[in-house]
Amino acid sequence: MAGSTPVSPFAPTSPPDMPHVRGVALAAAEAGIKYQGRKDLLLVRLDEGTIAAGVTTQSKTCSAPVLWCRKQLAHGRARSLVVNAGNANAFTGQRGQEASARTARAAADALGCDVTDVYLASTGVIGEPLDASSFPPLLTGLARDLKPDPLANSRANAWADAAAAIMTTDTFAKLAGTTVSLDGHDVAVAGIAKGSGMIAPDMATMLAFVFTDAAIAQPLLQDVIQGITQRTFNCVTVDSDTSTSDTFLVFATGASGMATITSADDPRLAAFSTALETVARDLAIQIVKDGEGISKFVTVSVSGAEDDRAAKRIALSIANSPLVKTAIAGSDANWGRVVMAVGKAGEAADRDKLAIRFGPHTVAEDGARAANYAEADVSAYMAGDNIDVHVDVGIGDGTARVWTCDLTHGYISINADYRS
Amino acid sequence: MAGSTPVSPFAPTSPPDMPHVRGVALAAAEAGIKYQGRKDLLLVRLDEGTIAAGVTTQSKTCSAPVLWCRKQLAHGRARSLVVNAGNANAFTGQRGQEASARTARAAADALGCDVTDVYLASTGVIGEPLDASSFPPLLTGLARDLKPDPLANSRANAWADAAAAIMTTDTFAKLAGTTVSLDGHDVAVAGIAKGSGMIAPDMATMLAFVFTDAAIAQPLLQDVIQGITQRTFNCVTVDSDTSTSDTFLVFATGASGMATITSADDPRLAAFSTALETVARDLAIQIVKDGEGISKFVTVSVSGAEDDRAAKRIALSIANSPLVKTAIAGSDANWGRVVMAVGKAGEAADRDKLAIRFGPHTVAEDGARAANYAEADVSAYMAGDNIDVHVDVGIGDGTARVWTCDLTHGYISINADYRS
Repeated sequence: MAGSTPVSPFAPTSPPDMPHVRGVALAAAEAGIKYQGRKDLLLVRLDEGTIAAGVTTQSKTCSAPVLWCRKQLAHGRARSLVVNAGNANAFTGQRGQEASARTARAAADALGCDVTDVYLASTGVIGEPLDASSFPPLLTGLARDLKPDPLANSRANAWADAAAAIMTTDTFAKLAGTTVSLDGHDVAVAGIAKGSGMIAPDMATMLAFVFTDAAIAQPLLQDVIQGITQRTFNCVTVDSDTSTSDTFLVFATGASGMATITSADDPRLAAFSTALETVARDLAIQIVKDGEGISKFVTVSVSGAEDDRAAKRIALSIANSPLVKTAIAGSDANWGRVVMAVGKAGEAADRDKLAIRFGPHTVAEDGARAANYAEADVSAYMAGDNIDVHVDVGIGDGTARVWTCDLTHGYISINADYRS
Repeated sequence: MAGSTPVSPFAPTSPPDMPHVRGVALAAAEAGIKYQGRKDLLLVRLDEGTIAAGVTTQSKTCSAPVLWCRKQLAHGRARSLVVNAGNANAFTGQRGQEASARTARAAADALGCDVTDVYLASTGVIGEPLDASSFPPLLTGLARDLKPDPLANSRANAWADAAAAIMTTDTFAKLAGTTVSLDGHDVAVAGIAKGSGMIAPDMATMLAFVFTDAAIAQPLLQDVIQGITQRTFNCVTVDSDTSTSDTFLVFATGASGMATITSADDPRLAAFSTALETVARDLAIQIVKDGEGISKFVTVSVSGAEDDRAAKRIALSIANSPLVKTAIAGSDANWGRVVMAVGKAGEAADRDKLAIRFGPHTVAEDGARAANYAEADVSAYMAGDNIDVHVDVGIGDGTARVWTCDLTHGYISINADYRS
C-alpha cells in the first residue's frame, strides 16, 4: 500500500504542467472502498460529441468494468468515465456486473446522459464483491459541483487529484500532457495512469486514460491507439503478471475547434499521433518507474533479430527474467543471465554472433566474453540508477525496446503482505 | 552458494538407500574450478555395451557440453560421463567447444574407450571461459582408483559423493533409487540431479543422470524418457528461467542379466518405465524442494481444462506468477492472483465456471468467492509448509500437475549476489 511502502526513487519531484483540454471536467471523492482519508472515486464529464477508443486486457478472466467498456467501445460515443480504486470488481460474477451497471446508471442520471455513454474502470483487490451502494449519491454530488466553466475543472490540480484517486500500490501519481498545433488550432493531450505491480505487456496495459480536444473520427482514433499501445504500454513489464483489469481509453472531445480528421491521409494525423504517443509513452514509463520495489530503471533494446516480433520476444524474455532482474538489483554485470534469457525466448539466435552491451560497455561479442572487457568500468556503470541492456542478435534487422525495473526485496515485501 | 545460504527446510534428514547398479562405477575429485574444499569433478565409468538416451535444453544459446552430448546421443553408445560444477562452459565460443573436446579425450584415454562414447555436462557460471587444463591428470587418477570390483564404486556413499560433486547453489545433494524385478532379474535404477535456480520446464531439465543395469534397446529407451521428461522434469519450475545447460541422461548398462527389451510390446517395458519414472519424479521434486529461497513446497493441479496441454499451460502460468508465489510466501490465500494467472495463460477459461481450492478448502466457485468460505480455516492451512492449489476450469477434461516453490526474500538475496 502506498502508505507503508517507500516512495519510488524515480518519483517526479514536481507534477508536470498539464494543458487545458476543452470539453473535459474532472472531480474526485472519498468513497472509502478500501482506503481511508484519500479520494478513491473519479468522475469525468465529457462534452457532447466526445468519442472514445480503447484497448482492454486479453485476460480470459477480465473484470466486469472491462466487459462493460468493450460493449460501449463498439459504438464509441462517450459522455463520462467513472473509476474507483480499492476493489477491481473482478471475479465477482453476476453481482459484479450488476454493480457496474448500477454505477453507470448513477453517473448517467447525475450527468443527464445515456447510460451507454458511460465508461467504467475499477482497480484493487480481485475476488471481493464490490459494494457500490455509496457511489450514486457521491456521483450526484460530484456532478453538481463540477463548475459550469470547464476550464476550472481541468487545471493541473484537477489532473493531479484525478491521478491520485486511481492509485493502489502506486507510490506516486502519474500524469503527462502536451499540446500540438494543428492548422492553427492548439490541441491538448492530457493523460493519467496507475499501475505498479501486476504489470505485463502483450495484452493491454494497466489503467490509463488520455483526454484530448482533437476532432477525429472514432475508427481512425481506434487504429492509431492500437499501434501506440504496441509501442508504449505493451513495451513495459514489472513482473510479467497481466492484470484482469488492464484498460487504456482515449477520449476526444473535438472541442479544440479544428476540423475533424476523417482520413488516414490527413497530414494532421501524424502530428496528432505523435503527440498522443508522447503522452502514452510518458505514462507507460512512469508505471515502470513506480514498479513495485524498483531500485533501478532498465531499458532493454534488441537489434539484429530475425524480425521486430522476434526482437520484442527476446527483449521481453530478458526483461521478465527473475535472474536478470535480481542481477541488476545487485549491480552485477551478469551477461551470462542475459545469454540465458536470449536462449529461452525461443526465437532464432546464433550463440556465436551474439553481442551484449551494458550502457556503452561491450561485455560480450562473437559468442564469448569481450576481449577488452574491463570489469571495473562495467561495475561502476551497473552501480547507477538507469541501466541500458543492449543485445545484438546478429542475424537480421529486427529491433525492439522495452522498459522494466529490477527485482528487489521491496517487491517481495510489498507482495507477501498486500492482497491485490 | 551452498555455504552462505541456509539449507532448504525440505532437505532430507538422511540420504536414501541406493541400489547397486551393475556396470557403473563413480568417483569424484577436487578440481577447484570455482569452489574450494569440495569435490567438483565427477567421473562415471560405464561397462561395455552401455547405451545412453537423453533430453537436452531447447535453449538457443545452449552450452558446449550440450552440443557435445547431442552429437553422441545420435549413436547412443556410452562408456563414460564427466561432469564439472562451477563453470557451465556456456557462451564460451570456440574455446568452450575445444575445452569439451579435450575433456572427453582425457576421459577416453584414462578409461581406454572411444572419445565419442564419453558424455559431458558442466554447470555453474555462464560466459566465463572454462579452464579445463587440470582435468586430464585428475581424470587419469580417478580412473586408476576406480576399484576393479564395480560394487565398491556404486555403494550409497559413492552416489552421495557424486551427487554432491555436481552441486552449485543447491543446499542438499539429490539422489534417488529403486529396484524392479523383471523376469526374476533384479534391475536397479539410480539417479542423481542438481538444480536450485534457473529452473523452468517445457524445455528439458537441469542436470539429472539416471543409471540402470536394465537391458533395453536404445531407441525404446529414448522413447520412454521423452514421455517421462514431460511428466517429471518438465513439470517443475522454480523461477521460470530456463538454463543453457539442462541435460537429462539415462545410461543402461544391461548388466543385470535380463534379456534385452527390444519391443514396445514387451510386458516388462511398463514395469521398467514405472521404476524409471519414479526415480525421475523423485529427483524432479527434490530440485523444487531445493528451489532458491524456498519456504513452501507448492503443488498446482488443474482439471477441467480444454485438454491436457491447456491444463499444463494454466498450471505453469500459476506456478510461474511472481504474485501468486509471493502471496504463498506470505501465507495469504490470495485466490484473486490465481484468477489473474488463469486469465493470463491465454487458454480457454470461463470466469463463471472457475473453482479454486487451497488444500481441502474451496475458496472460489462459479466465478465468485465461495459462499461458505471460512478465512480462519484457510489461513491456518496457508501457514503450513506444503500448499496444494487446485483449479477446476470447468469446461473440459484436461488435467495437469506441476510442482513449484514460493518466491521469498531468500531468492532475492541468493541471486542479487551470486553470479551464475
